[in-house]
Amino acid sequence: MAHARVRKGARTASPSSGARRHKYVYAFANGKAEGSSALRHLLGGKGCELAEMTNLGVTVPPGFTITTEAWAAYSAGGRKHPAGLWEQVLAALARLEAAVGLKLGDPARPLLVSVRSGARASMPGMMDTVLNLGLNDRTVLGLARWTKNERFAWDCYRRFITIFGDVVLGIDRHAFDELLDRAKAQAGARSDADLQREPLKALVAEFKRLVQARTGKAFPQDPVEQLRLAVSAVFDSWFAKKAVDYRRIHRLPDDWGTAVTVMAMVFGNLGETSGTGVCFTRDPSSGERRFFGEFLVNAQGEDVVAGIRTPQPIAALKESMPKVYDELVAIKDRLERHYRDMQDIEFTVQEGRLFILQTRSGKRTAGAAVRIAVEMLKEGLFDDRRIKESSERREKSIHTALLRVEPSSLNQLLVKTVDPKAKYTAIAQGLAATPAAAVGKVVFDPEKAVEMALREEQVILVRAETSPEDVAGMHAAQGVLTSRGGLTSHAAVVARGWGKSCVVGAGDVVVDEESRLFRAGRTVVREGQVVTLNGATGEVVMGALPLVDPTLSPEFEKVLEWAGKVSTTKVRANADTPEDAAKAREFKAVGIGLVRTEHMFFKADRIAIVREMIMSRDEQARRKAVDSLLPFQREDFIGIFTAMHGFPVTIRLLDPPLHEFLPKYKEVLEEYTRLDALGINPARHQELGAIRARIEALQEANPMLGHRGCRLGITFPEIYEMQVRAIMEAACEVAKRGVRVEPPEIMIPLTGTVEEMKLTREMTERVARQTVSDMGVKVGHSVGTMIEVPRAALIADELAQHAEFFSFGTNDLTQMTFGYSRDDIGKFLPFYLEHKLLPSDPFAVLDQEGVGEMIRIGIERGRKTVPKLKVGICGEHGGEPSSVEFCHDVGMDYVSCSPYMVPIAWLASAHAQIKQPRRAEGHTSGRASRSRPRA
Amino acid sequence: MAHARVRKGARTASPSSGARRHKYVYAFANGKAEGSSALRHLLGGKGCELAEMTNLGVTVPPGFTITTEAWAAYSAGGRKHPAGLWEQVLAALARLEAAVGLKLGDPARPLLVSVRSGARASMPGMMDTVLNLGLNDRTVLGLARWTKNERFAWDCYRRFITIFGDVVLGIDRHAFDELLDRAKAQAGARSDADLQREPLKALVAEFKRLVQARTGKAFPQDPVEQLRLAVSAVFDSWFAKKAVDYRRIHRLPDDWGTAVTVMAMVFGNLGETSGTGVCFTRDPSSGERRFFGEFLVNAQGEDVVAGIRTPQPIAALKESMPKVYDELVAIKDRLERHYRDMQDIEFTVQEGRLFILQTRSGKRTAGAAVRIAVEMLKEGLFDDRRIKESSERREKSIHTALLRVEPSSLNQLLVKTVDPKAKYTAIAQGLAATPAAAVGKVVFDPEKAVEMALREEQVILVRAETSPEDVAGMHAAQGVLTSRGGLTSHAAVVARGWGKSCVVGAGDVVVDEESRLFRAGRTVVREGQVVTLNGATGEVVMGALPLVDPTLSPEFEKVLEWAGKVSTTKVRANADTPEDAAKAREFKAVGIGLVRTEHMFFKADRIAIVREMIMSRDEQARRKAVDSLLPFQREDFIGIFTAMHGFPVTIRLLDPPLHEFLPKYKEVLEEYTRLDALGINPARHQELGAIRARIEALQEANPMLGHRGCRLGITFPEIYEMQVRAIMEAACEVAKRGVRVEPPEIMIPLTGTVEEMKLTREMTERVARQTVSDMGVKVGHSVGTMIEVPRAALIADELAQHAEFFSFGTNDLTQMTFGYSRDDIGKFLPFYLEHKLLPSDPFAVLDQEGVGEMIRIGIERGRKTVPKLKVGICGEHGGEPSSVEFCHDVGMDYVSCSPYMVPIAWLASAHAQIKQPRRAEGHTSGRASRSRPRA
Repeated sequence: MAHARVRKGARTASPSSGARRHKYVYAFANGKAEGSSALRHLLGGKGCELAEMTNLGVTVPPGFTITTEAWAAYSAGGRKHPAGLWEQVLAALARLEAAVGLKLGDPARPLLVSVRSGARASMPGMMDTVLNLGLNDRTVLGLARWTKNERFAWDCYRRFITIFGDVVLGIDRHAFDELLDRAKAQAGARSDADLQREPLKALVAEFKRLVQARTGKAFPQDPVEQLRLAVSAVFDSWFAKKAVDYRRIHRLPDDWGTAVTVMAMVFGNLGETSGTGVCFTRDPSSGERRFFGEFLVNAQGEDVVAGIRTPQPIAALKESMPKVYDELVAIKDRLERHYRDMQDIEFTVQEGRLFILQTRSGKRTAGAAVRIAVEMLKEGLFDDRRIKESSERREKSIHTALLRVEPSSLNQLLVKTVDPKAKYTAIAQGLAATPAAAVGKVVFDPEKAVEMALREEQVILVRAETSPEDVAGMHAAQGVLTSRGGLTSHAAVVARGWGKSCVVGAGDVVVDEESRLFRAGRTVVREGQVVTLNGATGEVVMGALPLVDPTLSPEFEKVLEWAGKVSTTKVRANADTPEDAAKAREFKAVGIGLVRTEHMFFKADRIAIVREMIMSRDEQARRKAVDSLLPFQREDFIGIFTAMHGFPVTIRLLDPPLHEFLPKYKEVLEEYTRLDALGINPARHQELGAIRARIEALQEANPMLGHRGCRLGITFPEIYEMQVRAIMEAACEVAKRGVRVEPPEIMIPLTGTVEEMKLTREMTERVARQTVSDMGVKVGHSVGTMIEVPRAALIADELAQHAEFFSFGTNDLTQMTFGYSRDDIGKFLPFYLEHKLLPSDPFAVLDQEGVGEMIRIGIERGRKTVPKLKVGICGEHGGEPSSVEFCHDVGMDYVSCSPYMVPIAWLASAHAQIKQPRRAEGHTSGRASRSRPRA
Repeated sequence: MAHARVRKGARTASPSSGARRHKYVYAFANGKAEGSSALRHLLGGKGCELAEMTNLGVTVPPGFTITTEAWAAYSAGGRKHPAGLWEQVLAALARLEAAVGLKLGDPARPLLVSVRSGARASMPGMMDTVLNLGLNDRTVLGLARWTKNERFAWDCYRRFITIFGDVVLGIDRHAFDELLDRAKAQAGARSDADLQREPLKALVAEFKRLVQARTGKAFPQDPVEQLRLAVSAVFDSWFAKKAVDYRRIHRLPDDWGTAVTVMAMVFGNLGETSGTGVCFTRDPSSGERRFFGEFLVNAQGEDVVAGIRTPQPIAALKESMPKVYDELVAIKDRLERHYRDMQDIEFTVQEGRLFILQTRSGKRTAGAAVRIAVEMLKEGLFDDRRIKESSERREKSIHTALLRVEPSSLNQLLVKTVDPKAKYTAIAQGLAATPAAAVGKVVFDPEKAVEMALREEQVILVRAETSPEDVAGMHAAQGVLTSRGGLTSHAAVVARGWGKSCVVGAGDVVVDEESRLFRAGRTVVREGQVVTLNGATGEVVMGALPLVDPTLSPEFEKVLEWAGKVSTTKVRANADTPEDAAKAREFKAVGIGLVRTEHMFFKADRIAIVREMIMSRDEQARRKAVDSLLPFQREDFIGIFTAMHGFPVTIRLLDPPLHEFLPKYKEVLEEYTRLDALGINPARHQELGAIRARIEALQEANPMLGHRGCRLGITFPEIYEMQVRAIMEAACEVAKRGVRVEPPEIMIPLTGTVEEMKLTREMTERVARQTVSDMGVKVGHSVGTMIEVPRAALIADELAQHAEFFSFGTNDLTQMTFGYSRDDIGKFLPFYLEHKLLPSDPFAVLDQEGVGEMIRIGIERGRKTVPKLKVGICGEHGGEPSSVEFCHDVGMDYVSCSPYMVPIAWLASAHAQIKQPRRAEGHTSGRASRSRPRA
C-alpha cells in the first residue's frame, strides 16, 4: 500500500508522463542487476535473489522482474496493465535478447522464457508459472534444429500449450490430459516420456484444435502477445481461490501482491556437457558441513522429478565436468557466506556453462538445524562486523543461531521415532498425539498391561478411550492407541506428559474388548499381536518397525544453554512423581510449575484407601482414610523435593471430583443388573449395590463444572489439611537431610471467589505453621491460586491481595471461556477445523483472541494491586511455541509444561525475547488488554 | 466518616475545649426536641423519630439521644467516652428528671429509663437494649410502693439484672435462665408470670450472687454508674459478631455506628386507666383505609408478646377510654400525613395519659402495599407542594407510589396460594421454588400424570429429580415435588417458567418409584393420595388445603401501567407456546425475549420424529425426519405470532444436545442388561441395543460444554434451516391472515467465534430470503446472538458487526464464568451459602461482580463498534429485582423473564429508572466496566 501510494503521488505530480517515469521493471543480466535482496517487497523472493546473485557475479540466466507495484497498479486499475509498463517490459526484453544473443520469435534460434510468480513470502504451489514461452508453429522447428532434438522441441511445445491453456486461457487442464492419455493409449506408451515425435506433433495439432474450440480463437502465435497474456495471468493468479485461502490461513496481507520474473530458459539436455542438479551447502539431514547434492547429465529438471533416471551424487560432477564442479563449489561457498545460512541451490549446465536458477535457505531436519546453528556460530558466520563491542556481537550471534532453530521441530529430537529408512504400510490412521513411536503387543485391559509389563513385555494399550482409571495401565504400556478422542483427550494429555507414544481418535479402529481384538478396515488385530504406533504421523502398523533413540547432542545442549540465558520467561515442568522431576531437570527445567497430587491417588497401593475415603458415611471414617493416605503423599513429595534440590516446586491440591476415583458406573450398573436379574452371588450383589448407590449420589451432569477443586477442599477440609501437612512434613524432612529445599508453593485449584481464596489460604497457613512447629525445622511456604475459571481473571485485582502467585490453568480456562468440554470437543472439532470455523484446536494452541484476552485481563488486574505478582501458566499450552510467545508477551514469569516439552518451551521463550525484548525480572503486563490480533 | 472528620477538625482548631463544645446529646421533652427526622444519620431511626414526634406535639416520654458521632469518637478513642460526652449526658438527664418530676436513684419515686440502640437503618434484633435501668436494692422498694405492686417491682428488678448482666456485664444469659427455671420448678410455677413476689425476691438475691461470682464485683447499685456502663455496652453492641455479619450481608457500612436513646420508662400496668397497644394507620393485610390495632388494659408490652391475655381490638379503647382514643386517632392521622406512609405505632397509656413510644413505616402484604400506594396517591398524600409544575408533581407522586411497593413481594399476588386462614402441619419441608400452592393426587410417573390430567384429575408429580423427558408430565401436573435439586434445578426452573407450584430438594422425602410411594419421616404417601404443596414456604401437607386464587386488582393494574411508563428498560417474557405468549401479554410483556424451540420437540406427537432424526444413520434419513417436524414448528410459531399481534418475538434456534431427546441411558442400559442376562425378548433386546449404541455414541462427559447450540446447528445444518423456514413461513402466513407481525428476531445460541456468527447468519439470511420469496409476502427478520460463553463477551466488538442484537443468556454465562454446573451446584451450594462463601445462589440472583463484569465488558465492547446495538437478557435472572436493576444500570434495552415474573420485572425496572435515571432509547453502556461494587 505504501508503494501504491507513492506511485499515485507520482502520477498526480505529472499526469501525462508520471506513470511512464515510474520504474516497473528491474533487469538482471551479465553480472549487473538493478535489484537486490533488499527489494524483496518489490521483486518477490525469487526475483530479488536472482538480482542479488547477478550482482554477486554468479551466473544466472538473464531476465527481468516486474514489480509488485506494477501488480498493485494493475489490480487497482481494473486488471489493466498500467501505462508505461509494457514499454518497460519490451525494453527489458530487448536487453535480455541482446544478453543471450537470441530473439523471442526468431525462427532460427528462438529465445524461450519462463514467466514466474514470486511474492514477498513463499507461497508454495499457490500461484502460476509459465515455462517455454516463445514457442509457436515456426519457432518449434527452429528449436528442434538448434537442439538437434525434434522430440524434445515438440514435447516442449505440447507442454507449453497445456500450461498456457490452463494458466492463461483458463481451459481446464483435464481436457489436455484426456487427449494426452488417448494419444498414449493409441501409441502404446506407458509414460509421457515414451511418446515419440510423431504422436507428439499430432497431439500439438489436437491441442491447438482444443484451444480453438474452447476459446473461439487460434492458439496465439505471436510470442510478444503470449508474454503479455502470461504476465497478466500471473498477476491474476494472486486472486485465485487457493491463493486467497492460503493467505487467510497464514495471515498474509492481501495487498502485498506478486512480482513476475521473466527469465531466459536454459536447457540441461543438450548433450553430455549439459545437465541439471540440486545441491545443499551442508547435509540437510545431519547438518554436517559437507557439500551435498544430486546431478543428472543431459537432463532437465522435470526428468529428475519424474524419477526416470537415478541422479548421481554431486561428487560425480567432479569427474565429468571438473571445471563446472569447481565453479559450483566456489559459488555455493560464496552464497552460504553471503546469506549466512545453509542454501538449497538449483542449477543447470548448458553445454558446459553453469547457470544458477535459484537459491534459498534450505529445509533441514531439527537435528541438522541445531548442528548448523551451533557450527555456523563457531565459524563466525553470524558475526556482525558492524558491531564493535565483542560481547554485544557475541550476543547478536547467539540470537541469530537461536532463531535458526524452529522450536516445534525439536519434538523430533526428544523421543524414540520410527527409523526414517523403514518402509511400511499403515493399517489405520489416527491423530498424531505425541511424536514418539512405540512397538508392543496389543492389550485391551489396563490391568493386563500392568501385569505384562511386570513380566518385562512391551505392550500397546488399545482402548476406545481412556479414563483416569486406566492411568496405571497407560504408564505400564509403551504406547496408547484410542479410537475416540481428540488431541487433548485424556489419553493424549497423559501420554504427552510422559513423552509416551500415543495415537488417538483412530476412527477406523473398532475395539471389541470382549473378543479381545480390534478391527482396522479388513485387518483384525488380536491381543498379543505386535503393532507399531508412529506417534509422529498417527499411523498404526502391523509388526515391529525399527525405532531410533533420541539423543541430546552436545549442540542441542549448547542451544538450550543459550536459550536459558536469553529467556526472560523461564521454563518449569509439570511433574507428578520423583521420576518426572528427574526428567524435568535433565531437560533443564528450572522448577516444577505443577504437581498434580491426584495422580498419586491412582497408584495401586492407594486407590483402595481413596475409595474407602469416598465410601465413608461419616466424617470420622473419612478422616481415618484420609490420614492413612498421608504417609504416601509425604513420600512422593520427599522424592520430588529431593530431585529438585533447591529449584521451586508448585503443588496443586486435589482437583478432580471424587467420582473419578470410583469404578466406572456403566460396568458397575451392568454387573449389578445382571446379578440382580439372575438372582446369583448375593454378597457381590450387595457390595455392588452399595458402590452403585455411592456413585449415583456423587454423579454429576457436568463434572467439569461440578464439585471439584477448592470446592471439594472447602467442603471436605480434611483432604486439603492432610495434603498441606504432607507437603510441609516432606519439605522439613528433606531440609533435615541437608538437601536444599525452596519454600513449597501451595496452589489452590479452581478458585472463583475471594472468599474461597481467603478460607483456603487461612487453612493452609494454619496447617503449615503447625506442621513446621511440630517438625522443628524452619521451612517457609507460599500460597497461590490457579486462574482457571473466567471469574477469577475478572476479580484478579482482589484475588491478588490474597494469593502470592497466579498460575493460569489454560486447559480449564479454555474450556470455560469457549464453553468447550475437552472430552467432548471431538464431536465437532474436526468439522470446525475443516471448515475454518477455528484456526486450530484451542486445547493445543492457545486461543489468543479469547482465552488470551481473559489472561491479559487477569494479569493486568492482578498486577494493578500487586505489581510484582508472580505469574505463570501450567496448562498444556505451556509447551506450544506460539502460546509460549504469547506468555512472554503478556509478561509471565514462567511457563510450565511436560518435561518432554521443556526444551521446546525454552527455545520458544528465547525467540520471543529476541523478537520482543523484555527486561529480565521486569513485571510488565506486556501488551495492554484489547490489543489482541484481528482475524 | 464525614462527621468524624468534622469533629476532628473542630478539635484541631481549639485543642483544649474543642471536644467539650461538640454537641453529643440531643434532648427531647415537653414538645421540644433538639433533633428531627432529618438527623437520622446522627440520631438513628428511633431517636430521630422520637424527636420528630416531640416537635410535632405528640406526647412521647421525654429523653435524649447520644449521637453516632459520640459513638465514632468512642470507637476511635479505644472505646472510651470522649471528653465532654458524660457532662452532656448528665445535663440532659437533669432536664429529663425535671420534665417527668422523678429522679434517677430517688428511693421514693425513682426514675427508670430504657437505654436503646438505634442505627441509621433498621437492624432488627442485632443490637442491644437495656430496660428498667435505675433499679437497685432501694429503688425497687420505692417502685413497689409507688406502683402499689410489689410483685411487679421485683419482677422488673429481676429482669433488669438479667438484661444488664447479659448486655453490660457479659454474663451468659443462660446462667440467669437456669436459676429462673429452678425457681419456677420449686414454686411449681408453669410460666414466669406465675412466679410470685417472694420467689422473685429470692431470685433477685440469687442473681446478685451470680453477678458477684462471675464478675468478682457486686451488682452496681449506683444508677448513674449503671447508665454509664449501659451506654458503653450499647455502643459496643455495634461490634457484636451478629451485627457485623448482618452488615456484611446487607452491605451496610461499618462506620455508620449506632446512636443511643435514653428515655423515661412509662408503665401501662398501673391499673384500669393504664394500658398498652400497637396500631396501624391502615389495614396491613388488605391495605384498606381503616384504623387497625390491638390494645390491652392494665398491661405492659411484654404481656402482649407473652400472649397470656387476648388483646382487644382498638375500637374497644373508644369505650373504655374515649378521650385517649380520640387523641390516638388524631395522632395516627397526623403521623400518616406527616410521614406520607402507613405507620406502625406503639403506645402506652399510663394512668390515663397517652404516650407514643415509637412510630415507623408499617410492614404490609404485597396486596396492601399496592392498594395503599395507589390510594395514597389518589388522596394527594404524595403531592410535593414545593413542585410548581403539576405534571412534574404528578410524575414525582407516581415515583413515590412505585417505590412503596417492593418488586419481589409481588410474587404473592401472581399465584394460587394456601388460604392464610388454613391451619395445618407439614409432613416434609423442601425449598420454596415458586410461591404457588397446589393440591392433587400423588403420581410418580410423568406419563401417568399426563394420562390422569387428560381425565381431568389434578395431580402432583413426585420425582427424585426431573429431566427434560418429564416436561410433558410436569406440564400436566398441578405441582412438582422433588427430593433432590436446588432452586435452579430443572424442576424449579421449568415450574417457575409456568408459575406452577414447585417444592424441590425436600431431603426428607424418599421416593420409591417401584413401589409407587414416597416416605417423609414416618409418613408413607402412596400414589393417588392427595397432598398440598405450599410453594411459598416449601411445605408438603397431607390432604387438600383450601387455596385462594390470584387477583390482578385494579390497583395492581394501575401500578403496572405506571411502571411501564416510567421504565426505560422494557420487559419481555420467555414463552415457548401460544398459551405462554397469551399469558405474557396478560401480564403486560411488550414482546417475547426468548422462545425455546426445543420445548416444542418434547411434545408427545413430536418426540418420536425427533428420535427418528437422531437415530438416522445418514443425512438423507435425517433430512426426512427434520422436514416432517417443520409443520409442527410452523404451527407453534403461527400461534405465538398471532398471540403477540405486533409485539416483537425473539426465537432461539435449537440449543440442547441431541442426547437430551433420547430415553434415559440408565434405564435403557438396565433393561438391556436384564434382557441380555435372561436371554428373553430378542426383538426388544435388539431394539434397545440400537438405542443404547446411539446414546453411547452421543454421550458426553460434560454436555453443557458439548455439542449443542450453534455447534449443532452448524454441523447438522438441516435442523436450523428447517427452523428458519418454519419461522418465516409462520410469519408470512400470519401476515397473510392480516395479523400484524413484527419481523421475527432469530437468535443463534452459544456463539463463541465470529466465524460461527457469520456462517449461521448467512444460512439464516439465505433461507429467510428464499422462504419469503416462496411465500410471496414481504416480512422482514433480524439475526442476533446470545452471549452465553465468556468468549462471546470478550469479542463482542467483532460479533456486533455481524449480529443485529445481543441477548445475554445469563444461565449459561453464570455456569461458565463461575465454572458451576447448574445441575450440580447443589453438591456444594448449601455449604457455600451457610458459610458465606457466596452471598446468594448465583443462578437466582445475578452475580454482579463476576458475571456482571462479563456483561459490562460485552455491552461496552459491542456498543464500541455498534453504538445503537439492541441488548437484552433472557436468563432466569430477568425476573429478579436486583438483577433487573443491574440490567438497567448497564444500559440494556429489555429484560425477558417468565410470564409470571413480568410484573415484578416491570416494577424493578421502574425502581431502577427512578433511582438511576437513563434517557429512554438512550443506548449508553451505563456504568463503565470495572466500577463493580466492592464486597
